[in-house]
Amino acid sequence: MKSPGLNQETVRDLLRTATPDRVLRLIGTSHPADIALLFKDLEAAEVRVLFDILFSVRRAAKTLKELPADLLPDILSLIEDEKVAHVIARADPDDAVTFIDSLREERKERILALVDPERRESVRQLTSYPEGTVGRIMTTDYLALPPITTAQGAIDKIRERGELETFFYLYVVDEAGRLLGVVPIRNLVIAPQNRMLGEIMITDPIRAEVSMDQEEAARLFSKYELLALPIVDNKGCLVGIITVDDVIDIIHQESTEDMYKMAGLQEEDRVFTPPSRSIRMRLPWTILNLLTASLAASVIGLFEGTLVNVVALATFFPIVAAVGGNAGIQTLTIIIRGIALGELEFSSVWRAVVKEVSVNLGIAVFAGGLVTLLVAFVWKENPFLGLIVAMAMIINLGLVAGLFGALIPLTLNRLKFDPAVGSGVIVTGLTDFFGYFSFLSLAQIFHSYLA
Amino acid sequence: MKSPGLNQETVRDLLRTATPDRVLRLIGTSHPADIALLFKDLEAAEVRVLFDILFSVRRAAKTLKELPADLLPDILSLIEDEKVAHVIARADPDDAVTFIDSLREERKERILALVDPERRESVRQLTSYPEGTVGRIMTTDYLALPPITTAQGAIDKIRERGELETFFYLYVVDEAGRLLGVVPIRNLVIAPQNRMLGEIMITDPIRAEVSMDQEEAARLFSKYELLALPIVDNKGCLVGIITVDDVIDIIHQESTEDMYKMAGLQEEDRVFTPPSRSIRMRLPWTILNLLTASLAASVIGLFEGTLVNVVALATFFPIVAAVGGNAGIQTLTIIIRGIALGELEFSSVWRAVVKEVSVNLGIAVFAGGLVTLLVAFVWKENPFLGLIVAMAMIINLGLVAGLFGALIPLTLNRLKFDPAVGSGVIVTGLTDFFGYFSFLSLAQIFHSYLA
Repeated sequence: MKSPGLNQETVRDLLRTATPDRVLRLIGTSHPADIALLFKDLEAAEVRVLFDILFSVRRAAKTLKELPADLLPDILSLIEDEKVAHVIARADPDDAVTFIDSLREERKERILALVDPERRESVRQLTSYPEGTVGRIMTTDYLALPPITTAQGAIDKIRERGELETFFYLYVVDEAGRLLGVVPIRNLVIAPQNRMLGEIMITDPIRAEVSMDQEEAARLFSKYELLALPIVDNKGCLVGIITVDDVIDIIHQESTEDMYKMAGLQEEDRVFTPPSRSIRMRLPWTILNLLTASLAASVIGLFEGTLVNVVALATFFPIVAAVGGNAGIQTLTIIIRGIALGELEFSSVWRAVVKEVSVNLGIAVFAGGLVTLLVAFVWKENPFLGLIVAMAMIINLGLVAGLFGALIPLTLNRLKFDPAVGSGVIVTGLTDFFGYFSFLSLAQIFHSYLA
Repeated sequence: MKSPGLNQETVRDLLRTATPDRVLRLIGTSHPADIALLFKDLEAAEVRVLFDILFSVRRAAKTLKELPADLLPDILSLIEDEKVAHVIARADPDDAVTFIDSLREERKERILALVDPERRESVRQLTSYPEGTVGRIMTTDYLALPPITTAQGAIDKIRERGELETFFYLYVVDEAGRLLGVVPIRNLVIAPQNRMLGEIMITDPIRAEVSMDQEEAARLFSKYELLALPIVDNKGCLVGIITVDDVIDIIHQESTEDMYKMAGLQEEDRVFTPPSRSIRMRLPWTILNLLTASLAASVIGLFEGTLVNVVALATFFPIVAAVGGNAGIQTLTIIIRGIALGELEFSSVWRAVVKEVSVNLGIAVFAGGLVTLLVAFVWKENPFLGLIVAMAMIINLGLVAGLFGALIPLTLNRLKFDPAVGSGVIVTGLTDFFGYFSFLSLAQIFHSYLA
């Protein structure tokens, strides 16, 4: 499956000199995921040539689905309506939905009108489920049979049906389409030919309703090590399945979301998003960041009198802020990951909070001690300053970084919000604010020792 | 599969009053992943009772493997050697390795001596591969057959073999054990009975060597949407397989690692890690953090003359530091996720750097403009200060946050290091340092406007 000849530069040269048959030979038996990489940095005309080559050998759909979500709209915008419609008509149903979702609004209906009515109806049905639900990502490409089908009968059905996207289970349904059970394909293989599916099926399998959040479904997959999950409507009728490869995408997406939300980024902001869009998406968080920083600045303003007397205090600002912020981010990261991985299921919330506060207090005592010694050593004229930094650290790390770093994501999660949203900006805002406040208050209280 | 009766409190009460048969009835047909949750917060004696109940119904291994990696050693330390040996002898080979790895060093050999020689040898073999390689996590629980086996012969073999952990492919090997091809179980089902595996197999399947890094293997799974990956030794002989459920664990682990390394955390530091261990693991990063913060502090020390004249400058420190740090973390996050998800394969490195620098410059212009206006409005006696903050932001966001935020992870990755390691602490250290430096230098240059 390795394709040493599949070099992006070579293909580009061939596309430029318009020798599609040689491109075709190079692409040969390569995996669509490797072919997709060829679209990197191509010009519009070259994209069209490459697409046409893939289209002519019926590999366009499989290749397009391997493109990152941010590149797909650009590529599709270069292709004629008829060809896009053709790709949508032949793609797996869940991929067809992805393609339709990547089209500009005004193009969607125009292209759907070119697709055969049956496929159009099924795409419309799938896109009617809200984004983020399993209904939106499920495929309708599965095999459901009545319980009286024999093992041999089922095998004949599989043969008739031809290629199924991914295939681990047969689904057993009653006349109304309600899910009765699943038959792992392995069990089908070893069952006597005349045994009925109803006798060999696993009854009451784990299932999900169409409206289930896709992240919750991903958690079911990793908790129960599922390969496929049947999706039912509110009457218990089988309407689709999601498979483990979709779940890998969701897990990646979920981790990206957590990391992004902590940093104040939006999910669409990727490596190759145009700068102007990225700026627009990051600005709201920058403004929130400016606001929280201004609060910290106003604390400093309050203590200008103390600062005028002991300007050396300002030298310690970066230490107070950085150590507090870092500890807050560490606690946040532990808790957010703990929630995502289900580790908190094995521990109780208050224990997690107590633990993080104790850890941060411990770190504050060590780091504070270090700062006190260091200042006493290098700053002989004012050895008392280090002790004030240390005291401020104990307050800021233990109480602010530990407490808020743990409580903010836990509370957001309890309230069914995303535990990571904006948390980095908020927690470092709080550690800045309380860090400066405790440091400068202590300096003011003990100012007679600092002169 | 839902188990409404499986309540942790109820089970605990039953364990305390020592009524194992009622516990057993409650556990009933619950999934091991749900049963594992019962170990939460139990006392030593209760853990032993619960384990014995599971052991008596042969569900101990399946349940123990569902425990988080940090809880498993504690639980195993409470169980007698003979029982642990029994569990290891009966577990899937890859789970047996996990259990052995979770034992205290001096206990490993003692327990392995109690296991039958064949299993002992296979566990020794698997644990001989370095941690982090696919050899360490693969299972030897697969079916490999010669190419002349007929489809019906293969089905008979599957029937003989009984339960296989996960089962998607038959592997076809020559007399020396070299991997020739794979037969998806679906193809086996629909093949004529007397067709030979050599005729229906997919030749030259994607494979990995035992020494491959597990993260690289996970990327193969998600790129090529694999369900199982055959593992070969350096002679091309099949020695094991890894399956998609292992990969989901690796993907989770990899994301955790990235988030943890950015924040300066070690992977073993979890929600329920004892505080003293967490403190020890976080201290080195706190010290690095103190060092970078001290560098920033020394910059401020350099400009004490300027600060004495215009104490108001100190008020803007949190703004200069927070906005620079936040922008650096955003760029880092985008690049680190881009590397993890393979998005950078679709874009070139220098384009990513140029993009992040332009985005951060754009944000600096907006945010700087806002600060300038704000300061001019509320701080009428010194409207010029805001402009200096804005200029410092442009230098710090564009050049430091954008450039270093992108170049540090990209360079680490190019040098085959983990792109995330310590990056948050380092980048915020740099934005602090250069932020204060540019702000205070500008203030010194333009001091005549600030008095």
